[in-house]
Amino acid sequence: MGTTKTSADPDRATVRRVLEQAREDGITALAAPDAKRVCDAYGIPVPQEGLAGSPGEAVALAEEIGYPVVLKVVSPDILHKTEAGGVLVGLASAEQVASGYETIVRSARAYSASAEITGVQVQQMLSEGLEVLIGAVADPTFGPVVTFGIGGILVEVLRDATFRLAPVSRAEAEEMIGSIRAADLLRGVRGRPGVDRAALADLIQRVSELVSDFPEIAEVDLNPVLAGVDGAVAVDARFVVSSEKALDRPPRYEREAILSVMNRMMHPRAVAVIGASAETGKIGNSVMRNLIDGGYRGEIYPVNPKASEILGKRCYSDVSELPDGVDVAVFAIPAKFVAPTIAKLGDRGVPAAVLIPSGFAETGEVELQRELVETARKHGVRFIGPNIYGFYYTPEQLCATFCTPYDVKGSVALASQSGGIGMGILGFSRSANLGVSAIVGVGNKADIDEDDLLTFFEEDEATSCIALHMEDLKDGRAFVEVAKRVSRRKPIVVLKAGSTPAGSRAAASHTAALAGDDKMYDDILRQAGVVRARGLRELLEFARCLPMLPTPAGENVVIITGAGGSGVLLSDACHNNGLTLMSMPPDLDAAFRKFIPPFGAAGNPVDITGGEPPETYRNTIALALEDERIHSIVLGYWHTIITPPMVFAEVVSDVVGEFRARGVHKPVVASLAGDVEVEQASAHLFAQGIPAYPYTTETPVEVLAAKHRWARMANQL
Amino acid sequence: MGTTKTSADPDRATVRRVLEQAREDGITALAAPDAKRVCDAYGIPVPQEGLAGSPGEAVALAEEIGYPVVLKVVSPDILHKTEAGGVLVGLASAEQVASGYETIVRSARAYSASAEITGVQVQQMLSEGLEVLIGAVADPTFGPVVTFGIGGILVEVLRDATFRLAPVSRAEAEEMIGSIRAADLLRGVRGRPGVDRAALADLIQRVSELVSDFPEIAEVDLNPVLAGVDGAVAVDARFVVSSEKALDRPPRYEREAILSVMNRMMHPRAVAVIGASAETGKIGNSVMRNLIDGGYRGEIYPVNPKASEILGKRCYSDVSELPDGVDVAVFAIPAKFVAPTIAKLGDRGVPAAVLIPSGFAETGEVELQRELVETARKHGVRFIGPNIYGFYYTPEQLCATFCTPYDVKGSVALASQSGGIGMGILGFSRSANLGVSAIVGVGNKADIDEDDLLTFFEEDEATSCIALHMEDLKDGRAFVEVAKRVSRRKPIVVLKAGSTPAGSRAAASHTAALAGDDKMYDDILRQAGVVRARGLRELLEFARCLPMLPTPAGENVVIITGAGGSGVLLSDACHNNGLTLMSMPPDLDAAFRKFIPPFGAAGNPVDITGGEPPETYRNTIALALEDERIHSIVLGYWHTIITPPMVFAEVVSDVVGEFRARGVHKPVVASLAGDVEVEQASAHLFAQGIPAYPYTTETPVEVLAAKHRWARMANQL
Repeated sequence: MGTTKTSADPDRATVRRVLEQAREDGITALAAPDAKRVCDAYGIPVPQEGLAGSPGEAVALAEEIGYPVVLKVVSPDILHKTEAGGVLVGLASAEQVASGYETIVRSARAYSASAEITGVQVQQMLSEGLEVLIGAVADPTFGPVVTFGIGGILVEVLRDATFRLAPVSRAEAEEMIGSIRAADLLRGVRGRPGVDRAALADLIQRVSELVSDFPEIAEVDLNPVLAGVDGAVAVDARFVVSSEKALDRPPRYEREAILSVMNRMMHPRAVAVIGASAETGKIGNSVMRNLIDGGYRGEIYPVNPKASEILGKRCYSDVSELPDGVDVAVFAIPAKFVAPTIAKLGDRGVPAAVLIPSGFAETGEVELQRELVETARKHGVRFIGPNIYGFYYTPEQLCATFCTPYDVKGSVALASQSGGIGMGILGFSRSANLGVSAIVGVGNKADIDEDDLLTFFEEDEATSCIALHMEDLKDGRAFVEVAKRVSRRKPIVVLKAGSTPAGSRAAASHTAALAGDDKMYDDILRQAGVVRARGLRELLEFARCLPMLPTPAGENVVIITGAGGSGVLLSDACHNNGLTLMSMPPDLDAAFRKFIPPFGAAGNPVDITGGEPPETYRNTIALALEDERIHSIVLGYWHTIITPPMVFAEVVSDVVGEFRARGVHKPVVASLAGDVEVEQASAHLFAQGIPAYPYTTETPVEVLAAKHRWARMANQL
Repeated sequence: MGTTKTSADPDRATVRRVLEQAREDGITALAAPDAKRVCDAYGIPVPQEGLAGSPGEAVALAEEIGYPVVLKVVSPDILHKTEAGGVLVGLASAEQVASGYETIVRSARAYSASAEITGVQVQQMLSEGLEVLIGAVADPTFGPVVTFGIGGILVEVLRDATFRLAPVSRAEAEEMIGSIRAADLLRGVRGRPGVDRAALADLIQRVSELVSDFPEIAEVDLNPVLAGVDGAVAVDARFVVSSEKALDRPPRYEREAILSVMNRMMHPRAVAVIGASAETGKIGNSVMRNLIDGGYRGEIYPVNPKASEILGKRCYSDVSELPDGVDVAVFAIPAKFVAPTIAKLGDRGVPAAVLIPSGFAETGEVELQRELVETARKHGVRFIGPNIYGFYYTPEQLCATFCTPYDVKGSVALASQSGGIGMGILGFSRSANLGVSAIVGVGNKADIDEDDLLTFFEEDEATSCIALHMEDLKDGRAFVEVAKRVSRRKPIVVLKAGSTPAGSRAAASHTAALAGDDKMYDDILRQAGVVRARGLRELLEFARCLPMLPTPAGENVVIITGAGGSGVLLSDACHNNGLTLMSMPPDLDAAFRKFIPPFGAAGNPVDITGGEPPETYRNTIALALEDERIHSIVLGYWHTIITPPMVFAEVVSDVVGEFRARGVHKPVVASLAGDVEVEQASAHLFAQGIPAYPYTTETPVEVLAAKHRWARMANQL
C-alpha cells in the first residue's frame, strides 16, 4: 500500500472528457480503463501493476509500485498458475523479486516444457487489510451524498454505513469513519493494528469532491477499498453516469427577501379573508371568528361579493377594492378560484397568502397547483399551503385558521405538513398547556416551506425552539444549509414521517442500495444539527421540554432517587439514550453520603432510599446543583407518607428556584412513581419549568437526552 | 469440507477423562490436543490433516480427508514454502494429488538441491467459507448458554450474536442461525451461494449438548468456524474449565406444592396481621384498614400483645393463640422479630407469610435474611418479601398491603421487585382504571419469586396476562422453564431492569465477552416466550392492552386512516415494531375503493381522506372486520366537524361490537389526532375494549405489536 498520490488538485479536464465521451457513446456504467482514468484524476489509489519481460524489468516495476509485490506467470498455455508454481506472493526486496522471477519461469517450464511464457505480471500486494466501502449517489432530495461503510460481502447484509452531503470537510470525513458500528475494527481490536484512517478520510474527501464537481455522476462504488495499516486502495471502482437531466430545483430566495415577506405575514398590519362568511360552519366564518376571538389587534377585511358586513366588519366585494396595508390574505374559497384571486392580490400589493383550500395536488389536481405556483410567482405573492389548516402566531394573537383559537404564549414554533398531525399538535398543546409562538400548517408546500419558516423563526425573538413534522423535503440540500445555521442558535426537532425503507429496489451499486435506507435521512439530519424525534409523541414532548431546559454545560448526568428500582430503570434509560452517568468522584461521593442513610447507596445513582424526609431530597439536589462537575440532574421520586408527592414537587421547585435566582441553571427532570397524586405533582413541576412525568422512567430521560444531543451538535457543551 | 462425522452418541468418557486430568493438573484452558480430543468426542469437525511420504500416501490421506486438499512441502531446510514452489492448493482429484506431490518435491529440489524433504503435508482445504462463531458459557443466572454469531475479527465489534439456554433442539438451533443480523449472508446474497446451515445447526446442537453434559465447562469458543457450501469446520477451538464449584441453587418446589401454598395465600380463609395497630399512620394500622375497607370477606385476626381489640376485631397477644384456619399472616413488625415469629407461625400451622418489614439484605443485613430463610424453611412457612408493600388480589377483595385499597377487577396480574415501581403500578392502574387480578410486591425475593407467581397465575382463572418488573432472577433456568410453559397459555410481559451492559469485563473468550450484553437476557426471555417491555410505561400499557386485545389469527395488519399524515406515521410504527402491513389483494382494494372518495388512496394504509362522514369509517372498518385475510386493524382518526371525536368513538365501538356479537374477534387499535375531545373519545374506546390513544401514532401500534409477538411465540398465529 502506501501509494497515496498527493495530487493537490484533481485533473478535472480528464474527467470531463471521460464523461463527455460516455454521454456521446450512450454509456452509463464506465468501462474499467475509464474508471481508472477517473480514479487517477482524483488521486484515488487503485492497485498498481505491470508486465515484466525480465528480472530487471520486474525489479524496476516493483520499485515503482512499492514492496511487497506479487509475481504471476503470464502464459497463454498455463491456466492453473498456482498449480504450475507460477505465483509468488509477499516479495519484499529487489533480490527476492529478481530470484522470484527466475523461480517462476523455472517452475512453469518444469510444469509444462512446451508452454510459451509471455512474461511475469508484477502486482501491488494487497493481502492484508480491511474491506470498506466508499461511495456516492446523486440523491433526488439531497443531491450528491457520500457514503462510508463496511465493505466487501458484508455491506448489504449489515448495512453498516453512514452518509453525508458532499463535499465533506476533513473533520466530517473523519467523523464518518468514527461513526459506523464497526468503527472499533478500524481503530484496531484485540491486538490487531488499526487501519490508516487518514488515508480513508482522504479518499472520502476525494470522492465527495468528485461528485460535487460532476453532478452527472449518479453513483460511485469503491468496493472493496482495502484499508491497510499504511494506505488504502480501491480494489474495485464503479461509476454510473446519469443519462437524465439535472433535477429541476425550486427557486431559492435570498434571506432578506424571505424575512421581509415572512415578517409581513406574521406581523401583518391588516389581514384580508377571501371568502369570508357570516354562516356558521363555513370555513370563511370560522377564520373570521378566530381572527376576532383570538384577539388580533390589526385590521380585518372580509372579502365576499355577496355581503356588505360580516361579524361587524365592513366586507369588500373584490380584492381590488381592499384598502392599503393588507400584508396577508387568508383564503377560504374553492380551489379553482384561488389562482385568479392570487393574481389580483399581487397586483393590489399584497405580498403573502394563506391557502386553506384543498383540491390541488393532494387530490390529483397537479396541473391546477402548477398554475397556482406560476401565477403567484408572476404576481409576486408568496403563499403557504394549499391544503392547510392555516397558522397561529401568538405574539400577535393571530389565529389565521379554521380551527379554534389558541392563545397560550410560549417559545416553541411547531409546523406540520399534515392537517391531521396539525390537529394533534393543537390538541396536545391545549391539553398540556404548552406555550407556543406559532403553529403552522405547510400542507402541499407548493411555495413556502421549512426553509422559509426556519429563516423566519431564527430571527423571531418569540421563538427559541422549532419543531417540524415533515413527510418530504422539496430541496433537502437547501434545508440542510438553513438548518445547519439555525440549529446552532435554536434547537430544531424533526419528525420525519415515511422512515420505512422503500423496499429493496434494484440498485446497480451497493451504495445506491444502501442509500434507500432511512439511515441516510438520519445521518444527514444529524449533519444539519437537527434533533430527530422517533414519533409524534416524542416530537410533542421534545417541543414542550427543549425550550424549558437550560443548556447543559457538559455531559455529566447524576441520578438522585428515592426508589432504588427507579434508579436502575433511569440508569438504563440514560444508557439507551446516549447520556453519560458521571463516575462519582470520591469527595462528592462522601458529600452525598452525609445526607443519606448508611444503607443508602452513593455512587451514581445516588439512592437516598425510600423512607427519607423532604430535607434529604432538598440537600442532595442542592449539592448536585452546587457542584460544577455535575451538568444535568435526573430525579426519581417514590411516593411515601414521609414525603408526599406535592411536598416533593414543592421542595424541588424551591431548591431549583433558589439556584436559578443565583444564576445557576442546570437541566433537572423528574420521574414520579406513586399513586395518582403524582400526576398533580408532575403538573406543578412542569409549571415551574421542570419536566416531570408520572408512571414512566423513560420520558424524562428522553427529553433530557434530546437537549444534550442538541447541545452536543451545536457545540454548546 | 463435508467432514461431518455423524457420531450418533458423543464419547462422554473421553471428555470426562480430559476434564478430570485438567482439574488434577490445575489447568483452566485446555491445550490444543485436549481440545481436539473433546471436539472429536462430540463430533465437532476440525481441520483434518496428515503427513504423506509418497504420492500414494498423499492420495490415501486425501481420500480420507475429502477433496479438495492443500499440499505443503515439509522440510527442516525450507522456511519459505511458497517461494520454494512448495505449496499447492485446491487439488480436487487423486490424479492431481499424485502429480502435485511430485511437482512439489521437484520444485523444492529446484529451489534448494541440498534440502532434506521429510514429506508432504496433506490438509483439508478451507479457503472458501464464511467465518462464524459457535460458543457457550456457564452463566451464573441461566447455567449453560449456547451462542451463535458472526465470527472472525468482526465478532466483538459487531456483536452480532444470539443466545439460547443449552441444550437446544434442532428447531431452536436453526432459529438461532436465522436470527442474527447477518442471517442473509448465510442464506447467500448477490449471487453468492449460501452456507451449509444444516451443518451449523448440527454443530450448535453438539456444543449445547457438550456444555449441558459437563457444567464444569465454563466457556467454549469455536471461532472461527468456517462454514462452506457443504459442511462447517471449527478452525480454532478453545475450552475453559471452571475451577469453581457449581453454584448453590435455591431449592425448587414441586408444582403441586407451590399451588397448594399459593392458593391458601391468595384465597385465605383467615388472615392474621402481625403487629396490627389501632394507631393511624402505623403500617399495622394501614394493613388492618385496607383488609377491612377493601372488602375482604374472610376472618381478620390482629396480633398485638398490647391490645385486646383493633378496629372492632378481637386482638390476639401471640401467634400461638390464633384460631384455626389462618392461611396467611401479614407482618408489620421490626425486622429482628420476624424470624422468631415465623417459627411460631409454622408451628401453629400457618403456611404463608407476607413480609412487609424492611431492614434485611437491602440494608446490608444479609445475615438476618439468611436466618429468616432458614427458619422459614425449617418451620414449613413460605413467604413473600421481605421489604415489600404487600399484595392485592381482587377476586377475594384482598388488600394485604399498607398502601390504599384497590378494587378495579380485571384479568392482569402485576408484580414488581421494587416498592417504588409498585407504587407506580398502583397509581397508573388507578389513573387508567386498569382492571387487575393482582398486584404483588416481591421485594428481596428471599423465598417466593416469579416462578411461584407464574405457577399460581397459570392456573388462576381470574388472570389472563401476567406483567413482571424484575431486577434479577434467583434462578434464570427455573424461570425460563416455568415461563415457557405458562406463556403458551397466557402472555407474560417482563420489564427487566438493569439492562445496561455491565461494562467491558476482561473475558478470556469472545463468547464470554458477548455474553455480558443485555442481548443474552433478551434472547433467552424470547426463548421463554416472554414479551419484553422496554420501559415502565410500556410494561403498564402492555398490561393494560394485552388482556383486552383478541389474539390475531395471522400477521396481516391493515391501517384505515382519515389523515394521510397519520397513515404514514402508523406505517412507520408498524415497520419499526415488526408488524406486517398486508399487501392489499386487488379484489379487496376494489372493495375499499367503493367506500372512499376517488382521490382517496386504497392500498394499505386505506386513506379515506379527512372530509368523510362517520359512514365511511363504519363501512371500511366493517369490510376489514369481515374479510378473513385481514387479521388486525389500526385506525387513524382525524378530528373534523363532519366526524367529531365522540361520533368516531361510537361508530367504532358499534361496528366492533356488532362483529364481536357475531363471533368475529380481531384486534383493533386506534390513534386519535385532534383537539382535546380526542381524550374523551379515546377513554370511551378503551372502555369498550379498544385500545385508543390521543396524540400518538406509536403507542397503539406498540401494544398491537406486543400481542402479535406473543401470539407468534405461543404458536397461536
